[in-house]
Amino acid sequence: MAGGTRSWWGWGNVEDAVRGEELDALLGRVRALLPDAELAPVQAPPVTELGLPAPRVKPPSALEEICSAELTDRAGHAHGKAFRDVVRNLAGDVRSVPDLVVRPAREQDVVDVLDWCSRADVAVIPYGGGSSVCGGVEPRLDGDHAGAVSLDLGRLDRVLEVDRTSRAARIEAGALGPALEAQLRQHELTLRHFPQSFEFSTLGGWLATRSSGHYATVYTHIDDLVESMRVVSPSGIGESRRLPGSGAGPSPDRLFLGSEGILGVITEAWMRVHERPRWRAVASVHFQDFARAVAATRAIAQAALFPANCRLLDPMEALINAGTSSAGGVLVLGFESADHPVAPWMARALELCRDHGGEVPDPVRDTDTGEPGGGRTAADGWRDSFLRMPYQRDALAARSMIVETFETACTWDGFAALHAAVQGATATALASVGAPGVLTCRFSHVYPDGPAPYFGIYAAGRPGATLQQWDEIKAAVSDALIAHGATITHHHAVGRDHRPWYDQQRPEPFAAALSAAKKALDPAGILNPGVLIDR
Amino acid sequence: MAGGTRSWWGWGNVEDAVRGEELDALLGRVRALLPDAELAPVQAPPVTELGLPAPRVKPPSALEEICSAELTDRAGHAHGKAFRDVVRNLAGDVRSVPDLVVRPAREQDVVDVLDWCSRADVAVIPYGGGSSVCGGVEPRLDGDHAGAVSLDLGRLDRVLEVDRTSRAARIEAGALGPALEAQLRQHELTLRHFPQSFEFSTLGGWLATRSSGHYATVYTHIDDLVESMRVVSPSGIGESRRLPGSGAGPSPDRLFLGSEGILGVITEAWMRVHERPRWRAVASVHFQDFARAVAATRAIAQAALFPANCRLLDPMEALINAGTSSAGGVLVLGFESADHPVAPWMARALELCRDHGGEVPDPVRDTDTGEPGGGRTAADGWRDSFLRMPYQRDALAARSMIVETFETACTWDGFAALHAAVQGATATALASVGAPGVLTCRFSHVYPDGPAPYFGIYAAGRPGATLQQWDEIKAAVSDALIAHGATITHHHAVGRDHRPWYDQQRPEPFAAALSAAKKALDPAGILNPGVLIDR
Repeated sequence: MAGGTRSWWGWGNVEDAVRGEELDALLGRVRALLPDAELAPVQAPPVTELGLPAPRVKPPSALEEICSAELTDRAGHAHGKAFRDVVRNLAGDVRSVPDLVVRPAREQDVVDVLDWCSRADVAVIPYGGGSSVCGGVEPRLDGDHAGAVSLDLGRLDRVLEVDRTSRAARIEAGALGPALEAQLRQHELTLRHFPQSFEFSTLGGWLATRSSGHYATVYTHIDDLVESMRVVSPSGIGESRRLPGSGAGPSPDRLFLGSEGILGVITEAWMRVHERPRWRAVASVHFQDFARAVAATRAIAQAALFPANCRLLDPMEALINAGTSSAGGVLVLGFESADHPVAPWMARALELCRDHGGEVPDPVRDTDTGEPGGGRTAADGWRDSFLRMPYQRDALAARSMIVETFETACTWDGFAALHAAVQGATATALASVGAPGVLTCRFSHVYPDGPAPYFGIYAAGRPGATLQQWDEIKAAVSDALIAHGATITHHHAVGRDHRPWYDQQRPEPFAAALSAAKKALDPAGILNPGVLIDR
Repeated sequence: MAGGTRSWWGWGNVEDAVRGEELDALLGRVRALLPDAELAPVQAPPVTELGLPAPRVKPPSALEEICSAELTDRAGHAHGKAFRDVVRNLAGDVRSVPDLVVRPAREQDVVDVLDWCSRADVAVIPYGGGSSVCGGVEPRLDGDHAGAVSLDLGRLDRVLEVDRTSRAARIEAGALGPALEAQLRQHELTLRHFPQSFEFSTLGGWLATRSSGHYATVYTHIDDLVESMRVVSPSGIGESRRLPGSGAGPSPDRLFLGSEGILGVITEAWMRVHERPRWRAVASVHFQDFARAVAATRAIAQAALFPANCRLLDPMEALINAGTSSAGGVLVLGFESADHPVAPWMARALELCRDHGGEVPDPVRDTDTGEPGGGRTAADGWRDSFLRMPYQRDALAARSMIVETFETACTWDGFAALHAAVQGATATALASVGAPGVLTCRFSHVYPDGPAPYFGIYAAGRPGATLQQWDEIKAAVSDALIAHGATITHHHAVGRDHRPWYDQQRPEPFAAALSAAKKALDPAGILNPGVLIDR
């Protein structure tokens, strides 16, 4: 929630941490699943006890006003929000910390910071909401630079312009999800990009990491909602034209989308926005057999029905995160529209499900809010609990549980083998590190040619050793993903932590081209060193 | 049609040129529209009279077998198929001609050709079907290289592999449209990419130029149908993973899509294919007012109904190319599906049209072929006449008519001003060059945030001067596009002819990045010099 006290060590706001009845219920569910879990709580140390070194760099006087060397700022910007970040914070293990946190108030400040840092060999880590789960905002520099600043775009948070006719809005990169939605709502518009990090991640972060969001089909990634972008690089400012489509050379925007801050700092973008949906239909389909559930989901993905939600939960995921028991998984289907009732779409999707053995025990929940975007629906409830999950993850991480996710994408043809390989690698790794646990799987997004499987691991770790245990599990499953032709990430980005697998995945000539592009745009090599490519 | 004799100077096959009754009818229509047109025919000279210089380079003996110095080959590969190419050919004005036409029989041949040419400073012009309309395949080198070869991928024309489960096919880059569709049809699949050049353009050409095709919405460009690509560059071969979606760094494919042969030679790609549609619905909506027709089209584009066809014709376009008289234009709407009847989709789209004053004089043509892909429909008839247009263009170009198209994209908000500016610039330019003529406009593709307007010019030129006349008109309208924030091309690519406007359009930092990427992948600078960026 906006306006709270950001936790320096964990997700979101201090005031919103899991406690009381929610905590009791959560721990109860864990004990039922993993009776041997110890669940002994630890507390994060105060930032004054982290032993942070004094800043190694001093900003030019013209920039002093936007620079902070405050301990909580620096500690809070040292890590992202992965499980391994939270565990290290809880242990007081904060080694790579920015010397300063810089908060530009206007684009020229960004230009000036890049100028100063290029001259002074200071690494610049572009920072949106800080929700990276792959080491994307951590100044892990191996001594290559005179220092590091975290460039926090949070003050650039306005919707600057709205073109209602073209359904587009010019938005500053530092706007957090709720802030930009609140501003768009005044125009009865919405971006409808709802990653799990929604409350504490920014437009610029979404663009830089090719975030995926609300839509299970068609507009899966933020890439698809970009009309144009403005990027400040050390060698100049670039702004692409506002174009609905173009074939003029390789897409300029696509080079910066996913560039994770190594080529420039995104300062604003024209985004394609939507009218707020009025009609919604939601249904849950139960299956006796997971392979048939996958086949049904594939049929829907290939039917060009374009559901907004097409989330297949495997039986363990359905049990843990939806409280539903099913032998073959549950497919949660949702259609929505600001323009028309969606019953024909849902009817055909359910027909496809029934063709594959799906059963629909409850009636379809049809909603017509009567006006664009009014009212609350079942989907809102799921979203609330979805947004709550990172807080619960922290509560468990502080009780020596291993709770983490990883995600990928693969072809339909390759899914069964990949799934088996991930299950096998996880089981072996859990046994090897001595952590009893479970693996869940859902499809977060689906495409005509394949799903984006999203995996969760819940395991009882050994107090004080969960970081090493997780790193071993993560390496094993990452190896399995790469060996089976999948991507190391569908929407969590690469950062520093995914580099070993990303380096195997990407075509070598592309890596050479990207390195050359970086040298042209960032000749001093100050931008997010170590992310995506070698320094 | 496959198997004919390719014309060295004009579109397609010699056997299919416009003659007899078709020619009489065509000239009759022109005389009705432009009574002053002279229409005196000229004939292209035989290639032996072009005075082509002897080849300046000699291939290594290992490559001799795949090299041709034959005059018709060289003359036929000198130009693309723009109006200005055809006019120059008809005048025997063929100055930039490749020294050799090289036809690799396997990927290793491509590697060997790039090796040889890098060593010998020979420019390599990747060549698919040769249908470029922007100077993309013309070896206009200004003496910077020892010679030039046209690398014709036409022998690499097979569908190598089909993954029916994931609906994907691995296809060689040199496959022409009809050849790849014929091979896919054996699997009851289709790529459904039908640019106007369909019969004489290749998969590799579509990918290298970001071709747009059949689908008016969602999958507008070939980019959206790519699962992975294989590219041979002078510094190595790259192949991206087969992934339905990914967020691992900037998209490798998107750097090569639209790279127009300057970064490497695309040799094959995994493409997303479809089942052949069974259900179709087609309707024509008439409007009294073009602005209201545009508003209706916008409403459909923003309603997420995703028609396959959403072609708004202005009154002149409707008259000339559809034989329909209407005060405010005609919207041709088409829905299609391999999965379900499309009546609800069409019903809602027509409702939106009626809300904006549209009238539907004829009943919706609903088709159910009863089996996937069987039968012919009205859409097929339109496609046939659509594919016939380039032949008719040639017949008119040979009779001193100026017949050419240009296309762009813009936001909905900017369309009216852009349209007026293009109309104004065209009228002024036509008057200035003394060519009475008309301008037509249609939307080839539509997006939630804007249309892709496609313009046609039909003017009575001065015999012997139509090239200069067209160049002046083209410059005037291109200036108008750029001044009004539009793109110099939505799907015709940049090549050499669009450079002055492309250079104004693209962000400068992106140009620097692209140049750096090219230097890394093509250190000798042999690949399609002068296209997209400076040598």
